[in-house]
Formats: sequence, structure tokens, C-alpha cells
Amino acid sequence: MSGWNHRHIIDLATFSKEDFNSVLELANRFKNVPTTGTRKLPALQGRLIATLFFEPSTRTRSSFELAAKRLSADVQSFAPKSSSLSKGETALDTALTYVAMGADILIVRHESTNVPEQLAHCLDKAGYKTSVLNGGDGLHSHPSQGLLDLFTLAKFFSPENPVPSVLEGKKIVIVGDILHSRVARSNIWALTGAGANIVLCGPTTLLPEAFENFVDAPPPGQKHDPIKRRGKIKVMRSLKEAFQDADAVMTLRLQKERMRQNLLTDLYEYHTEYGVTHESLKWCRKDVPVLHPGPVNRGVEISSALVEDTSICLINEQVSNGIPIRMALLYLLAASV
Amino acid sequence: MSGWNHRHIIDLATFSKEDFNSVLELANRFKNVPTTGTRKLPALQGRLIATLFFEPSTRTRSSFELAAKRLSADVQSFAPKSSSLSKGETALDTALTYVAMGADILIVRHESTNVPEQLAHCLDKAGYKTSVLNGGDGLHSHPSQGLLDLFTLAKFFSPENPVPSVLEGKKIVIVGDILHSRVARSNIWALTGAGANIVLCGPTTLLPEAFENFVDAPPPGQKHDPIKRRGKIKVMRSLKEAFQDADAVMTLRLQKERMRQNLLTDLYEYHTEYGVTHESLKWCRKDVPVLHPGPVNRGVEISSALVEDTSICLINEQVSNGIPIRMALLYLLAASV
Amino acid sequence: MSGWNHRHIIDLATFSKEDFNSVLELANRFKNVPTTGTRKLPALQGRLIATLFFEPSTRTRSSFELAAKRLSADVQSFAPKSSSLSKGETALDTALTYVAMGADILIVRHESTNVPEQLAHCLDKAGYKTSVLNGGDGLHSHPSQGLLDLFTLAKFFSPENPVPSVLEGKKIVIVGDILHSRVARSNIWALTGAGANIVLCGPTTLLPEAFENFVDAPPPGQKHDPIKRRGKIKVMRSLKEAFQDADAVMTLRLQKERMRQNLLTDLYEYHTEYGVTHESLKWCRKDVPVLHPGPVNRGVEISSALVEDTSICLINEQVSNGIPIRMALLYLLAASV
Repeated sequence: MSGWNHRHIIDLATFSKEDFNSVLELANRFKNVPTTGTRKLPALQGRLIATLFFEPSTRTRSSFELAAKRLSADVQSFAPKSSSLSKGETALDTALTYVAMGADILIVRHESTNVPEQLAHCLDKAGYKTSVLNGGDGLHSHPSQGLLDLFTLAKFFSPENPVPSVLEGKKIVIVGDILHSRVARSNIWALTGAGANIVLCGPTTLLPEAFENFVDAPPPGQKHDPIKRRGKIKVMRSLKEAFQDADAVMTLRLQKERMRQNLLTDLYEYHTEYGVTHESLKWCRKDVPVLHPGPVNRGVEISSALVEDTSICLINEQVSNGIPIRMALLYLLAASV
Repeated sequence: MSGWNHRHIIDLATFSKEDFNSVLELANRFKNVPTTGTRKLPALQGRLIATLFFEPSTRTRSSFELAAKRLSADVQSFAPKSSSLSKGETALDTALTYVAMGADILIVRHESTNVPEQLAHCLDKAGYKTSVLNGGDGLHSHPSQGLLDLFTLAKFFSPENPVPSVLEGKKIVIVGDILHSRVARSNIWALTGAGANIVLCGPTTLLPEAFENFVDAPPPGQKHDPIKRRGKIKVMRSLKEAFQDADAVMTLRLQKERMRQNLLTDLYEYHTEYGVTHESLKWCRKDVPVLHPGPVNRGVEISSALVEDTSICLINEQVSNGIPIRMALLYLLAASV
Repeated sequence: MSGWNHRHIIDLATFSKEDFNSVLELANRFKNVPTTGTRKLPALQGRLIATLFFEPSTRTRSSFELAAKRLSADVQSFAPKSSSLSKGETALDTALTYVAMGADILIVRHESTNVPEQLAHCLDKAGYKTSVLNGGDGLHSHPSQGLLDLFTLAKFFSPENPVPSVLEGKKIVIVGDILHSRVARSNIWALTGAGANIVLCGPTTLLPEAFENFVDAPPPGQKHDPIKRRGKIKVMRSLKEAFQDADAVMTLRLQKERMRQNLLTDLYEYHTEYGVTHESLKWCRKDVPVLHPGPVNRGVEISSALVEDTSICLINEQVSNGIPIRMALLYLLAASV
């Protein structure tokens, strides 16, 4: 891919327009590979990909493993429960073990922010060529999710030519617990990077006012923003106002522990004010698509009826698009090794 | 396979004589594939099989995975402990995730009766082509186990031509905790379907009298029995009487928690009355085969000496036959997609 | 391999000089296979290798699985947590299940000493051809670790021709909790077998005096020592004296539970007396290599700075060499089947 120069994929704030284009173009090609025959591409034959999920996950790990297998890579999974982590091994030592065994790419998920970045830094410093792909870290970043959501929206608006630029000027509403969501943060970088305008909507406890300035400067440690003109961000408290003229809606899983933390008083009240339902969607434009990163709390952040209405609810499309997006990321990293 | 028309495999009560024949014939062919060389058949190359074991299991999951690998399929396993289930995701949402990732067949084990059937129903309704193979649900059904037991018995009585009809008129005794056994239920449908007569033997608390009428009508929701003349079922309380003229014996794992439930007073007493041993087998015909679905409680439902007497105890044969039986089921389902 | 006659690999006390030579020669060949292209060798295509890790492990299980995959074998992993072990199944019954499913080699790790040996004995007695490879049992033996350490040291002293004999007459110090270490025991058999002299160094509670006689006679049940003249063993209490003229140092993980058992009073004190650091290494010859089986307790048995000094700390080399060593063992066992 001309122009691709990331040895690691940590944060979408570092992606240029060209990067987004490269990933989506490649993903679209992988998605269109005929599903008859062996369905396998030989691209990563003999490459070893290790999934190090210090924080457990169904969807993301399976999706990465299937993406790797479809590219004919070998996959080794690290399962923290049955492992040496109980013996006090650090994440770095675990990572180095898999590097020493020959891993070309480490896919790292960790509950602490910046662990993937620190690992990447240590590996570079020590002269290893292994790439790190962030599979989700703390509240920080979940780049493959941000990219698959970007791809899903681009495909919705332009099925034949799903490029990021089709989202330019669109109004996309992200509803819910933005504060605790790495998915939301990665989507904000991806969608504003494509030129979309974002409305964030949720209660003050889950959505501080300061999010309006989220993309005004690159994150700490990053010198400049590779994208000159990003879409705008607005923070709104009323779902009705936020949905006005919206082109797409994304809602987020509400962790029930937010109640114990006194950030919410009542799930029913939350659903009444911020639940995405066929009724609340009437405030948007007609037939807007609804995204959710899964797994859903039916009846909390989204109604059960909407989950099952696959004409507009794109949850299954998102999961499905996760495979070609992750194939694209693995392919680009492996080519850069 | 001519006549095969099951999109899902949920319950052996729906199997016709032709269905049983097809599965055993195909399994016998797979069993006879030479084990030199790669041992792999290309039949399911590129197909994705997901094992969703909401209830844990060693034997069944490994057996299905090996069967899938021998047919060159890709396998993705769902491990509930390290997954989103703790986040409250429903079994249906988990299943849909794997369907969206491209799964052709879901192998589902669940502690609740009917979960695999409900999943199959939802998938059909939503227009998906993914097949569901019941890997064991609640007390209801465990079709692959019933079929591998049928195959093991047919092979015992007719090694060269192990067809279901060789069991016609045989007397097969199933001993133990019938009430709580999905293995027993699937065996009853399979064996009576092949024309064998079943004697069920156990104490009243673990074997209600009503089991004599178990196959008199198809299960709720099924309109007719595809088999016109089934073997008969008798319930008996005395092992000595049950074993009279028996041609084969199957005993079942006794869950020790039955004692806490006051269904049993004493394991030693149980072993004395219903334990299958070299001694109690003397009441049967000579050299009858003994089956057990495993894992065994040595010294409870079966003596340790008998477990190790591989001349008549077919436990290892059962495990071994599980692979070709499951290959046959996967093959038939994949062909029907 | 001429002379190779082990159907199982349980304990390095049974290895002749020829055996050590065969394993290292083969491992060195596997290590030099070009890592471009598919990196896969077809040697074990169609063979089934089951990893039965009754005691959990990150490194060893992953290393065996990767070794098996690089030889194109099928791998099935037994995960005790999600298994029938909670149902009370014995290790033998678990092993027999995998044998019945067609496993050619069982790799067995168990917290109890001798379980792999007993399994091997039972399988032989029952006429099965399946091989057992000890993946670590109790305090007894961890042969693949002993061999990879032997290989790592031989390669350090003779990169082009890493044969065991290059260690003849070398002085190798093993520091720490020898008493509770199967790694130390396997290294003692391997290194004295190669003709190296061993100094064991640690406090009395973790290193009984009797270890000086450890290789004077073969282990119980073994009739004779296949190696005529082994290196000597000395037990020393002072690290400074032990390190005098040392050619190589191996340190061992210190289990923190040793303190609860009153075998140690203080980790800081332990580090002062027995910690391997750049400072304490000055007592050795110049630039001696340092080995550790991992995972490390940084700042306890080894300093963090030393762990990261890859010019002399060979931890990553050990992990890396684990793959070709285990490939060699699997290859030799498969050839003997």
C-alpha cells in the first residue's frame, strides 16, 4: 500500500486520510473474495499471530483469529486464566515470550490504558520487528472497532464504493456512556477524520462537556494531527434535539456497574431518556442506520425490537465487517515487517 | 445422501430409518479411511464450524473439533468463561455473532432444554442458512451420542456391515439414572428406531414408571413419528430380572449430587443394586457388550475392573466412533446448506 | 535416528550421550530451517498431538503447540477448567479418551510426580502405541526444559556446532530453590550427562546437602545409568564462592509461597544473598551467560536490569530454542511409533 507507514496500530488519532482509505479499500476487496472454494488467501502463510487478551472477550478475539486464519496465518492464543499471569508475570514478559517464539504480530487487549503502546515502544527499543495491534486498551482506543464501524457506515451510504469520503458532512449521533468507551473515542477519530460531524448525547455523568474539544489537538505524545480539517463535535443532552436531521446513530453498551458508581440512578429512566428505539428514531431522518458495538443490553441502551430489525440495525453487519477489516490490518502490518 | 432433509440436528425422534442408515453408512466409510498420509478429507474446506459450549465438556467438544478438522473445516470455539456471557449476552446474541462471522454450522451445548432448537428456529426465521447441531441440551437430547452408541452396537454385532437393522429384536438394557439423562433419551429414540427392545432399569426416584410410554407418541411440537414400528420399552426395578437374556448393556453416569437431592441414600447401596460388574453381567447372555457414555465413576455405576476389560467394555470404542459419527453429521449438514 | 529407542520421554536420567546428541542435532537442523515461505515441515502431517495440561502453563503449552504446528500435526488441547475433571474423571480416563480419539502423542503436565510415567505404563500395558511426553510433573522432571537449556548453552559456547560435548568440564552454577524445582533436576541430568560440573547454590531450606549425591545412582525404578562418567555436583552456600571461575549461571524462579512455608524469611534478604545481578556476576568469569526458565520475579532471583541485558541474559534465546527442541522430541517420538 503506497503511503502506509505504521509498524504498529495503536490509536486512530495517528491515521491520515490515506491510511483510512487504504484500510477500507483493502477490506472491501477482502469482503468481496468469493466465499466458495477454500476461502483462504495465502498472504500470511507461515506468519505467526499471537492474540494476547489480558482482558477477556468473545467477539474481538474470535474475529481476529478468523481473520488471521483466512489469511493462512498460524494463530496462538494466550488465555490469561490458565496462564502464568497468576504467577505475577508482567504483560511485557508475556509479550516477549511470544516474540521469542516467533510471533510476527501481537494483538493485545488490556484493561489498562497504554499497555499496547508501551509494549510497542519496548519492542522497538529492543530491536524486535514484531508489530503490536491494539485490540482495545482501557478507555483509550479500539482501532479495529472504529475502522469496522467506519467501513459499515461507508458501505451503508455507498455499497459499491465504500470510501471514507462518503461520510463527509454527514451528521452521526453517538449516544450513551461516551466517558467510559474506547469504542466511542476510536469512532470519533475515525468519523471526524472522514469529515463527518459528530453529536455526542448522554447525561453529564457519562459525557463531560469537555468532549466537544476532543479532537482539537492530537493526544498527548503525538506531535501533529495528520488530518487537516476534521468534522465538528457537539455535546447535547436531549436525545430529541440530538437526533434532529441525523444521518446515522450509534449507541453504546451501558455497563450496569455505572449504577453502583452513582453515575446513574435507574436503568428504566436511562432507557426512557437515552434508549434508542423505533420511537426515538422518528426524530432522525427516515430509515437511519443504527450501530452498536455489542454485546447489547436489550431494553437498556437499545430496544429488543430494534436489535431484531435488521433493515436498519447494522449490528450483524458490523460483526461481519470485522473480519475483512481485521484481515486488512493484519495484511498491512505484515507487509510492513 | 438421498432422502436427507434435516437442516438442523436437534432430536433423534425426528430421524427416519433412512436417516439412521445414512449416518451409519457414512460414518462407517469415514472410519475406514486409511489413517496413513494426511488423514484429512477436503470435504469441508473453507467451511467454518463454531462450537458454542455454554455448558463445559471435554469429550464432546474435542470430538467435534477433531471431526471438523479431519474434514478440513475451520473451527472456532466459544469458551463461555473467557467471554461476554459474564456481560449478560444471551445465547442467541452469541450465536448471531458467530453467524455474522460466517459460521456454516453451530454446534451448541447448553444446560437448558431446547436452547439449540430455539436458536435453529430463530436462525430460520431470520433467513440465515446456518445449521444448528445439538451437542447436548438439558435433559432433552444428545443426538451425536445416541448415534455413536447405535453405531458402536451395530459394529459389535456386525463388524463388516454395521447397519441399524442388525439390532432388530435385540434386548438392550439401559441401567441407572434415566430420568436425568439426555444420553438415555437419545439412545431410546435411536435404538427403538432400529427395532431393538429396551429394558430400562433403575430405582423409582431415577426412573419413573412413565418411561414405558416414552416413544408412544412423538415429542411435543412434532406431528408424527417417522418410524412406523419401534421396539418396545419395559421398566424394571431388579437388575437380575432386567439382565435376563440381555444382548447388550448400557450404564449411565450417576451424578453424585443426586444424593443431596435425596434421590439416593447411599452410593455403596446403589452399586450393590445397580452397579454393572463382571458378576452382575453373568445374568445376561454370554459376553454381552457394555457401553457407558463417560466419564465414569469407577466403583459406582460400573466396576473399575469392568472399565478396564476392553474385551467387552466398549467405552473406548464409543469415544473412537464419535469421530466418524460426527464427521458424518457435519458432512450431511454442510451438504444440505 | 540411529539408536533412538524411547517410546516415551519422561525423565532425562534415562538419556544416553547418543540421545542427547540426537535431540540437539535435530533441533539445530530445525532451528536453521529458513523462516521464509510457509515455515512448515510436513513431517507430522495427519498426526494428532494432544496437550493434556492438568497444571496450567503459558509458555510450555504454547511452545509445544507451535512446535507441533510447524511439523504440520493436528493439535488438540485439553483445558482442565472447562472440562470433565470437575466431574471427577481421573487423569488416566482423560488420557484414554484422547487415545481413543486417535492421539499419537500425549503431552502431559501434572502437579503430581509420576503421573506421566504412570500413564505411559498403563498405555503400554493396554497395548496402545501412543507416546507420552512429560511436560512437567510435580518436582520430578521437565525434560524438554532441560534439553532446551542444554541446547542454549551449547549454542552459546559453540554457535556453529552446538553439541553437548562442548560443555565438558565447564562449571555451571544453578542458584536458588533447587529443592522445589523440576527444571533444576532435569538440568542436572542433562548437564552432568554432557560432562559439565554443577555447583548448586542456595540456602539450606531450599537446597538440602544431599543434592551432592543426586546423580550417584539412577532414580528409583531405573536399573542403570546410561552415562558412564557424569560431571560432578557440589553444594555451596555462598554465591561469591560458587561463582568463582563459573562459566555459566542458571537461576530459578522463587515461588513466593516459600515464605508462607517458613522456608524463607524475607525476599529482600534473599535477593541480597542469592540474587543474580550485574554486580554478583562480577565474581564469575567475564561475560558468562545467564539462564532462567521463566517467568521471572524481577528483583527477586534476578535483577530487572539483567533481565533486559540480552547480551548475556539468554531468557529469550531459551524460549526461542524451546520450539526446535520440542519439534525434535515430537519428531523422534512420532518416528518411533
